[in-house]
Amino acid sequence: MNRLKCTIAYDGTSFSGYQIQPSKRTVQLELESALAKMHKGEHIRVFASGRTDATVHAYGQVIHFDSPLSIAGKQWKRALNSLLPDDIIIRSVEQVDSNFHARFDVVSKEYRYKLSIHPDQDVFKRNYLYHFPYELDYISIEEGITYLIGTQDFTSFCAAKTEVNDKIRTIYDINIIKENDEVIFCFTGNGFLYNMVRILMGTLLEVGQGKLKPYQVKEILEKKDRSYAGKTAPGHGLYLWKVTYDN
Amino acid sequence: MNRLKCTIAYDGTSFSGYQIQPSKRTVQLELESALAKMHKGEHIRVFASGRTDATVHAYGQVIHFDSPLSIAGKQWKRALNSLLPDDIIIRSVEQVDSNFHARFDVVSKEYRYKLSIHPDQDVFKRNYLYHFPYELDYISIEEGITYLIGTQDFTSFCAAKTEVNDKIRTIYDINIIKENDEVIFCFTGNGFLYNMVRILMGTLLEVGQGKLKPYQVKEILEKKDRSYAGKTAPGHGLYLWKVTYDN
Repeated sequence: MNRLKCTIAYDGTSFSGYQIQPSKRTVQLELESALAKMHKGEHIRVFASGRTDATVHAYGQVIHFDSPLSIAGKQWKRALNSLLPDDIIIRSVEQVDSNFHARFDVVSKEYRYKLSIHPDQDVFKRNYLYHFPYELDYISIEEGITYLIGTQDFTSFCAAKTEVNDKIRTIYDINIIKENDEVIFCFTGNGFLYNMVRILMGTLLEVGQGKLKPYQVKEILEKKDRSYAGKTAPGHGLYLWKVTYDN
Repeated sequence: MNRLKCTIAYDGTSFSGYQIQPSKRTVQLELESALAKMHKGEHIRVFASGRTDATVHAYGQVIHFDSPLSIAGKQWKRALNSLLPDDIIIRSVEQVDSNFHARFDVVSKEYRYKLSIHPDQDVFKRNYLYHFPYELDYISIEEGITYLIGTQDFTSFCAAKTEVNDKIRTIYDINIIKENDEVIFCFTGNGFLYNMVRILMGTLLEVGQGKLKPYQVKEILEKKDRSYAGKTAPGHGLYLWKVTYDN
């Protein structure tokens, strides 16, 4: 058996998220269908670094699977890309140690959230940027961000229905890149809870609009209650950008 | 009656082109459906500067229609955008003279053709740029372009089934813009025949790859036969960019 690690990109627009669900079009379903075609119908289970929700994109999602086939990385890439629909692209394939696990071995993850601040909606970017044509105070946003960095209990910043018990995570950095009419928020951390980046983003937008004071971000964290944080920003602005592993 | 002129953008990906066809999703159908909702079900006919094919985009298509409603331009824009699907956007609406005609009064048109020359396909741009990761000789392309400028018979550069008799058109300019991994060809002329920009583009790509010599562009024009020109480049790289009228 060979264990293969793949870095994949997908356009989340037409998917009901990453994970398999009955009678829904999901990324995992498409990946496993393509692999079944390469393995005479045999089911090959795919493991991802984590799920993504409906409409959320990935530029650098990482998956692994096991295969008895002996194929070089470049040929794997070509074969899978020829079998996959055009909204999923295999960016690279490499053979890894049989102990590697795409989910359990994650060291850090980067998510990016992309805003368009142009006054008008751009029809060609409507599924790829969150259109937010409102004045933002970046000094307040940067101050709000300082309270989020570090190891903390992020209960207030995850969907109320989240089932994991341990809601302590470490955010290493939140960087803002401005390019013409696009503003990109880059979130790096050791892991993120369900809806966490979207709730962080929604809250920072409220800080930027003056609806929340920067120090209230600290108060929201201390409440450990989802209802105090801002709205969940829409999925289509979010990208799972990069997953980092130890070597 | 008020005559309204609208500049509209649309993402051609999910349309069977601009013009109404039985049981197909077209831009004209969506526009007329939105207008019917504003006019108690009355059919309001929309006239465009010209058709676009399936998967072809528009950034600056122009349409006109007549309405008995007295509404200001900004409110027209808001009302129509709220009724239209999100792959069509009304960029502006203005009241014009009742003699204005979106098709017959065109002075010039600009089409843009967008290439991605990055080695890998970008999943987020797959419907918006033609992925063409091959070496191109721009000196040869520029030389080929010189033969296309001016008033000529473009029979060789339109789909063989084109029914118009007069195939003489004037190309004012073909400009190339390079931005990172994107190359944009801007075609300006007094009008373009069916598939003309896509066949011009396909031919210029063959010149850029050395499959055709630049002077052969002149020979192809003289043949007045579609079969001598290059392939028709795919629709999804093409944008109806701007339509200009006399004021």
